[in-house]
Amino acid sequence: MTEPDSQQADRSGRAAMFAFASRGPGDGPRVGCFQTPHGPVDTPAFMPVGTQATVKGLTAEQVATTGAQVVLANTYHLVVRPGAEVIERLGGLHRVMGWDRAILTDSGGFQVFSLTAIRQVSDEGVRFANHVDGAELMLTPASAIEAQNRLGADLIMCLDECVGAQADYETSRSAVERTTRWARACKAAHRREDQALFGIVQGQLFADLRRQSVEELGELDFPGYAIGGLSVGEGHERMMETLGPTAAALPAGRPRYLMGVGEPADLLGAIGRGVDMFDCVLPTRNGRNGFAFTADGPLKLRNERHRLDDRPVEDECDCYCCRRMSRGVLRHLVMSGEMLGASMLSLHNLRFFGRLMEQARTAIGAGRFEAFAADWLARYRPGGETDKDS
Amino acid sequence: MTEPDSQQADRSGRAAMFAFASRGPGDGPRVGCFQTPHGPVDTPAFMPVGTQATVKGLTAEQVATTGAQVVLANTYHLVVRPGAEVIERLGGLHRVMGWDRAILTDSGGFQVFSLTAIRQVSDEGVRFANHVDGAELMLTPASAIEAQNRLGADLIMCLDECVGAQADYETSRSAVERTTRWARACKAAHRREDQALFGIVQGQLFADLRRQSVEELGELDFPGYAIGGLSVGEGHERMMETLGPTAAALPAGRPRYLMGVGEPADLLGAIGRGVDMFDCVLPTRNGRNGFAFTADGPLKLRNERHRLDDRPVEDECDCYCCRRMSRGVLRHLVMSGEMLGASMLSLHNLRFFGRLMEQARTAIGAGRFEAFAADWLARYRPGGETDKDS
Repeated sequence: MTEPDSQQADRSGRAAMFAFASRGPGDGPRVGCFQTPHGPVDTPAFMPVGTQATVKGLTAEQVATTGAQVVLANTYHLVVRPGAEVIERLGGLHRVMGWDRAILTDSGGFQVFSLTAIRQVSDEGVRFANHVDGAELMLTPASAIEAQNRLGADLIMCLDECVGAQADYETSRSAVERTTRWARACKAAHRREDQALFGIVQGQLFADLRRQSVEELGELDFPGYAIGGLSVGEGHERMMETLGPTAAALPAGRPRYLMGVGEPADLLGAIGRGVDMFDCVLPTRNGRNGFAFTADGPLKLRNERHRLDDRPVEDECDCYCCRRMSRGVLRHLVMSGEMLGASMLSLHNLRFFGRLMEQARTAIGAGRFEAFAADWLARYRPGGETDKDS
Repeated sequence: MTEPDSQQADRSGRAAMFAFASRGPGDGPRVGCFQTPHGPVDTPAFMPVGTQATVKGLTAEQVATTGAQVVLANTYHLVVRPGAEVIERLGGLHRVMGWDRAILTDSGGFQVFSLTAIRQVSDEGVRFANHVDGAELMLTPASAIEAQNRLGADLIMCLDECVGAQADYETSRSAVERTTRWARACKAAHRREDQALFGIVQGQLFADLRRQSVEELGELDFPGYAIGGLSVGEGHERMMETLGPTAAALPAGRPRYLMGVGEPADLLGAIGRGVDMFDCVLPTRNGRNGFAFTADGPLKLRNERHRLDDRPVEDECDCYCCRRMSRGVLRHLVMSGEMLGASMLSLHNLRFFGRLMEQARTAIGAGRFEAFAADWLARYRPGGETDKDS
């Protein structure tokens, strides 16, 4: 076990508040523990997404039962509604979410990519016509940090420029350089020692740009690094090709967070390459759409075949949904448009991702992650239901 | 304390399974306990409504925290979707709802009133063009009971003809007589001794028709009686005028259930007149629409005034919503269209109704119900927010 990086505390004035201890090679799977002011985060960790300061349809207590130790909220969305100052005056994100474990806020950089139609990027920052009422919202490096200082998450993110998988070299290089300039400005603007500011590596699928981004951000000595600009349409193979050297180049003593991932095969591939943290809307969004993750692949609860099925979604799952509700019941709730179907499938799916992380940590600890991942993927059919489920 | 009516068991062959013991006069407020195969129901009792076999947005565990000992589901809706046979094959309503306390199913008689546009009533029964896909559904006294036998609630209801508050005397008399004929047919069709079949008193606002209905149903010796055809537009005063003599005329040793009520003033008025059980969609429907019940009157969480308010909906409430979430947070969730706002306000509202029942039982037990109800109503402003809340 590597001891927490004490030099880090010395150089930056931060206490052991954000100490990260991990075991494993710099370029392979590793287990770790990241300390935050709201408790430890065992890594590899999956972060449920609560865009608007709520994991959709679930209480904080329910989210905690999935094993999550950190959840994500979104700066862009919260600045638009209800406003960072409102969250601050209501006691900050932890109080607003009723969640006493760690929280991470994204900076709004991903919305540069996802809300292309309503934003303009310049060196100064990103100007949005917001998605609620079209009012103008300007996010600069300084304002993105100020907003996150007000929101009060434990882990906060630099503003970055995320371009798509199709971006050409020049566009990607420009985004890397702007992301570095913005990271420097973000670090200068950051005011709270009880919040760890992460840099975000960009560079799309270009190995030299990823290297450049890692080097430039590394000089700024962040307590953690995110890898952005992946899972934006490039596919599993190319994601892994880019991810491997990028993760390996990041400082071994700091947590690595792959943003917006995702699919179980991507998670396992990334863990195998030394990534520590993940977030994705997949478990909750798919839950709301009537899909349940299982070790055999996703179930589509709308299917007629589930009508009279009194088995739980997964026998081996310990979530409230699997202990209390059958596939037939869930199908009825989904077909009837009942909120409970959406919330229970979200709960199960988050627990599925939580269990996957627990299993991965156990396997890494036992030195058998490669075999575990291979077995897991051999069973899992991403395309969905198979004859085994009929 | 009146002992359970042992003659009832002798005459009908029913065991003490549905014993009802109450304390109080036949025509005034009373506390009681109604035994069911799924536990006792302390009366006066409020039953949360779970039309489609789910109290909208809440788990069974959450519903139990509101103090509810019995919930309601709807035969008409469940016959339409997913079908009574599907519920039966999935283990019955208790298993489907994950609820181990008592359940009551309405018969579909109320849909005679509420779905006027898509139904035809004849002596044989009610023919619906169902609200989901328009397919024909025929509910007869025998089929309504057969469906309820399959659904498996503890308390089931006769099919009745519910006409509106505007119905004239002849229409109302005809509905009473048909309801009696149907009640006889329902009793003959009923097959399960572990389900108590309630008769439903009709007669609209006509005292002699209500008397006639009570007498005719009384001859059929039901283990409980519902009062239907109220809260259908007649207003509080006329509801109480009709309710008083109707409740008093019912057998003192059997529970009395006022269907579809409702407003706190109606609940207190009805409890004062000897009613034991209630159901209403108000707490959950209003919760979904952003309203919170409080002892001072309803709050409309959409109002700007709640934006920065970090107080709970009610200081004195012990529900999860009031312990964890402020008015400002709830306003954000409601304004953002988040499911959690709907479910948390539903939870609080159900707990508000549950606490009202607990307070009423305590007051009756202490012989001070009239004073309690007067004080309660003096504080409560049905019109909503007052300056006290600003």
